[in-house]
This record gives sequence, structure tokens and C-alpha cells, in this order.
Amino acid sequence: MNSLPAKIQDLTPKLAKLCLDIEKFGKLKSGEDFASKTMLVGVSGGIDSTALLIIATLLARKSGGRVFCAHIDHNLRKESAGDRAFVEELCTELGVPVKSLKADVAGYAAERSIGLEEAGRIIRYDFFKQCLKKFDADFLLLAHHIGDLSEDVVMRLIRGTGWPALAGMDAYDPKRKLLRPLLSTDKDSLEDFLRSIGCPWREDESNTCDDYTRNRIRNHIMPLLYNENPNLGAGLIRLKNQAELDEAFWDEQVAEAIKHVQEVEDGILLPCSILNKYHSALRLRIYKKILDDLGPGHTLFDSIILLDQGFLARKSGSTFQFPGKKVVKVNKAGLLFKVN
Amino acid sequence: MNSLPAKIQDLTPKLAKLCLDIEKFGKLKSGEDFASKTMLVGVSGGIDSTALLIIATLLARKSGGRVFCAHIDHNLRKESAGDRAFVEELCTELGVPVKSLKADVAGYAAERSIGLEEAGRIIRYDFFKQCLKKFDADFLLLAHHIGDLSEDVVMRLIRGTGWPALAGMDAYDPKRKLLRPLLSTDKDSLEDFLRSIGCPWREDESNTCDDYTRNRIRNHIMPLLYNENPNLGAGLIRLKNQAELDEAFWDEQVAEAIKHVQEVEDGILLPCSILNKYHSALRLRIYKKILDDLGPGHTLFDSIILLDQGFLARKSGSTFQFPGKKVVKVNKAGLLFKVN
Repeated sequence: MNSLPAKIQDLTPKLAKLCLDIEKFGKLKSGEDFASKTMLVGVSGGIDSTALLIIATLLARKSGGRVFCAHIDHNLRKESAGDRAFVEELCTELGVPVKSLKADVAGYAAERSIGLEEAGRIIRYDFFKQCLKKFDADFLLLAHHIGDLSEDVVMRLIRGTGWPALAGMDAYDPKRKLLRPLLSTDKDSLEDFLRSIGCPWREDESNTCDDYTRNRIRNHIMPLLYNENPNLGAGLIRLKNQAELDEAFWDEQVAEAIKHVQEVEDGILLPCSILNKYHSALRLRIYKKILDDLGPGHTLFDSIILLDQGFLARKSGSTFQFPGKKVVKVNKAGLLFKVN
Repeated sequence: MNSLPAKIQDLTPKLAKLCLDIEKFGKLKSGEDFASKTMLVGVSGGIDSTALLIIATLLARKSGGRVFCAHIDHNLRKESAGDRAFVEELCTELGVPVKSLKADVAGYAAERSIGLEEAGRIIRYDFFKQCLKKFDADFLLLAHHIGDLSEDVVMRLIRGTGWPALAGMDAYDPKRKLLRPLLSTDKDSLEDFLRSIGCPWREDESNTCDDYTRNRIRNHIMPLLYNENPNLGAGLIRLKNQAELDEAFWDEQVAEAIKHVQEVEDGILLPCSILNKYHSALRLRIYKKILDDLGPGHTLFDSIILLDQGFLARKSGSTFQFPGKKVVKVNKAGLLFKVN
């Protein structure tokens, strides 16, 4: 490994601008000067996360923040020990404390009868959570970029996701302290960054394998979409911006409405007097929120539509069932939500 | 051509249900008993529109409506004269008055330097408009089905369309009297319908040609998406339902806000006192509506975001330009919209 740049001023103007744009984007999304805080960066050793680790380190040196690194050896490929060695060497060079985990993803997946992708995700986020605590970090930085966002939108479209979730992964999720500062950056810029500073990275051969939906989307569907519009990424960033505004709007409206919910003896009552004032676009989101708050179980849009039709028809006495043993009963006073 | 079924009761229960489901869907979307009215059906002679013409005729016989047919010979393929003969013969058999137009799509496109697809669309809708008037029709029925809706969503995703337009073509557009009663029906059911009643149709060879974006999406991208989720169509119907609700909601909110717009000497004033009360998700839609109402010129989401930032920063005196010579000036009283 060549010696890496010590500060942003050592970079070419183009690369320095890349770093500052990434800082600006992260600040805008989190509403905080994240680079002056304690950041935990999830690093696999691939292009994206290697670039993110270096950029986060340069930004931290400028803004007075601290950087820690978390690496997971998924133990699914023979190269994974080499990935770990690479990440630990890089961290040493950058002066970044690193914590690695050798996980038995295949075993975890088999034990719970879930897919490898899902098992990996659960183990990863669980480990990140531990590391956030251990390092007392303010932010978990992940290296998802425009390409990942685009794939995610297509994945969600395929799955039948509704608005605003259709617009893809969040740039900032305060609940998980998760920030994706590269989400409006394209992969080519990250590769260009690493090449320019002479920093190597690890290739993940499993990315080219078609066993995973995600890889099939990446390798076969995305090239066709980008072929129709090379600026697809910009359009999806715009869509995500619109989704964020809409989500904030609906969250506000729903929170206001939920205040009028009454706890009664046999459940939670959403009074007709309140529901009558709202448009169905809002009513559906209120039902969804109350049902989600009742506990686990994924509520489908079509079944919420049926519930709303029940409300509109004032079918007193009729009952609607939802996953997770949730039940909504229509009565004269309104809709009664409970878990059986 | 075999003799066609004279009434819905002559069909198998499965095919009769298909017809009645289509009627139900059209009623739900238009809010009217369209099959009892005067319907103009656009027919190319392909599977979809041939099926629609026969189904509309059967529904009209049941409900007391009348059916007319409009056919356009785009004159782009040597088979097009045969298509016209087929459609006219089918109409004779069904007792449906038909009006055909032989259009010079290639000449029209060359004259205006536009693509063949766009030229075809303009000529088509212009002809339909004439026919609607000539036959004094209440509805223009077009044969777009789930497959077309799915392609349209992907097309709009590629183009960077925002919500709710992203969810695809409307099942009902009252401005154009346009109803798409097959929008929740899949193509296989339509082909099965025609085969079962022994009715032939015309194949459009140009559908397999990759010169058009639409065909590339249909022939290469859609199969990959459906391969990941064979129920993709159902998810997109649900997305469209959600989009319709959201669109109705925002239309209502924007219409309410627009009432507070003041016509002043040098343009249209949107007062701060009003804007302050609204969430940015609504403000952006209000700006868009006022700009659209000022005349032609497509306003981009990003430029509306900039305008909103100008409003939030209260940058008095600053001016924002939009396509179609539209200008918005920030002043102390609010935002001043005008066309230069």
C-alpha cells in the first residue's frame, strides 16, 4: 500500500471536492456536523467502503471527529481471511481502531431456516450495534452509493413496495444512527478516488454470482435501465428527495391524528368524529401506523383498503383481521383496534 | 371469422366473469355505468383492442349502451391495409359503426422533427377527439392492460418521473373522457378470451423490433422483472391505487391553497402568511400547480426545490427562472409568479 494522503489539502482539487460534497450531503441529511463526531464505519474492503473509510478519516482530521472501523468476515468465501487482513492493515495505516468479527453466517442461516443474505444482514447490524456501543459512536457510516440506491428501488418495485418506501434506502436513519454519506455519489467516482491515491481494494467475486436476486438485478437489469438513461441515478436521487419530503409530511399528519386516539377498556379507539375529517389517503396511513404500533406482523395495503371501505360503509360489528393476531372492529363510535 | 357470441350469457362462466370484472373495474374508476353510455373504442386489430371491442359490445348489449370504433392505419407497415380490413370486417359482424383514418405518421414526424412514436400518439389522440365529437361519445375506451401499465411504470422510472405520476397511466382521465377498463386485466386472459370464442386477431410485427424504447422495455426488461416476481402486475395495480388516493389528496390540498392566491398588478402573489402554514411537501406542489397553470413549459422538481429554499431564506429580490419564460420573484409579501 502506498502512503495515503494525510489531509484533504493533499488531494487534487477534484478529489477534495468529492470529499467535501460527501460531507455536505451527510450534513444535509443528518442535520449534524457528523465529521466532527465519533463515526463507526462498516468496511468490507471493497471499493465503496474502502473509499468511505479513507474519506471519513480525512474529514474527521479536518473537522475534529474520530473514526472507528467494524469489519465482518462472513466466512462464506475462501478470500475472506485476506479481506480481514487488508482492512486491518488499512486501519493501522490510517490510525483507526478496528473491531473484526468472524461470523458463521451459513450456520446461522441454516439454524433459523433463513437465506444467507438475510442471515448476513441480521449478523451485520447486530455487530454494528455492539460496536456503536463499545466505541460510544454517534454515527454508523455505511458505503451505499447511487448504484446501490438504484438497485434498491428496482428491488422494491419488484417486491411491490408502496410510496414513499419505494424510493429506496434512507440516507439517514436516526433510530439506527445510520448515515449513508455516499448515497448521492456514483461508484465510478469512488473507484477513481482510490486509483488516484494509489490505494488498493478487495474484489468480492460473489458479486458476479447470479444466485442472489440483488446480483441478478445488479448484473442484468440495471445495465438495461442505465442503457435507456445514463442519468437514471440523478432521477432516482430526485425521487428519493421527494419521498423524504412526503414521508416527513405524512409522519407529521399521522402523529397529529394519533393524538386523538382513545385508550378504552377493550383496545384502542379511533373515533369516527376524527376520521370523518380526514382524506382516505391519510386515513389509510393512520390505520397502518396504529396496526404497526400494536406489534409485529406486516399489514398489507389491500387489507387496509378493505378496512377503510368497512369504515366508510359504517358496517357496525364487522371485524377485520390482520397478521400478528391484530383485529379491528367497526362500531358506532369508530374503529376499535386490539391484539387477540 | 366464426360467428361471435351474441351476449354474455353465451360465454363460459369464466369468460363471462372476465367481462363483468372488466365492467366492475371501469365503473369503479369512472364512477359511472359506462357500459350503458356511448363508447368509442380505439382498435388496432391486435389481441388487446380486438378483445376490448368485443367485450365492450357484449357489455353494451347487456346495459343498453352503444359502441363505436375508431381505427388508424399508421401506414408504417405493409400489413396495415390488412389490419384495417380486419377491423372493418369485425365491426360489420358486431354491428359497430367504424371510422378509419389513413395517417401519414412518417411524414408528420419528419415535418415536425419528432419521433415516430410521438407523431403516432399525437395523430391518434387528435383522431380520437374528432371521433368522440362525431359520435357524441361519452367515453373513449383504450385497451391498455396490466402489462402496459407495468411497462409504463418502468418507462417513467427510467425517465425520472416523480410521485404519484410514477405509478403509471390513469385508468380514467375525465379531461380526455379516456377510460382503460382492461388496466387490471392481464394479456393472457385477453388472448384466452379470443381463442375461446374463436376470434382471430392481427399480429403487429413491429412490436418485436428493438428500435423503440417501449419495445426494448417490453422484450428485454419486463421478462427479467417478472422472472423475479411473477405477481409484479398485482403489486403495480396496488401502487396505482395508492397513487390515485395520493393524487386526489394533493389535488384537494393544492386547490384549497390556490384560493388564497392574489392577482396583483404585476402577476400572481402567493402570500407568505399562507405559505408559512404549509409543509414543504405541499408548498412544492402549490408552486408546481401555479407554474403549470401559467402556460406551457415543463417545470423540474429540482428547480422547484431551489425556489422553496429561496422562500425559506426569505431572499427578497431574488428571481427564479422556469421554462416557458415563467419567473418567480421572492419579495416581502410572498412569491410573485409571472410570465415575461
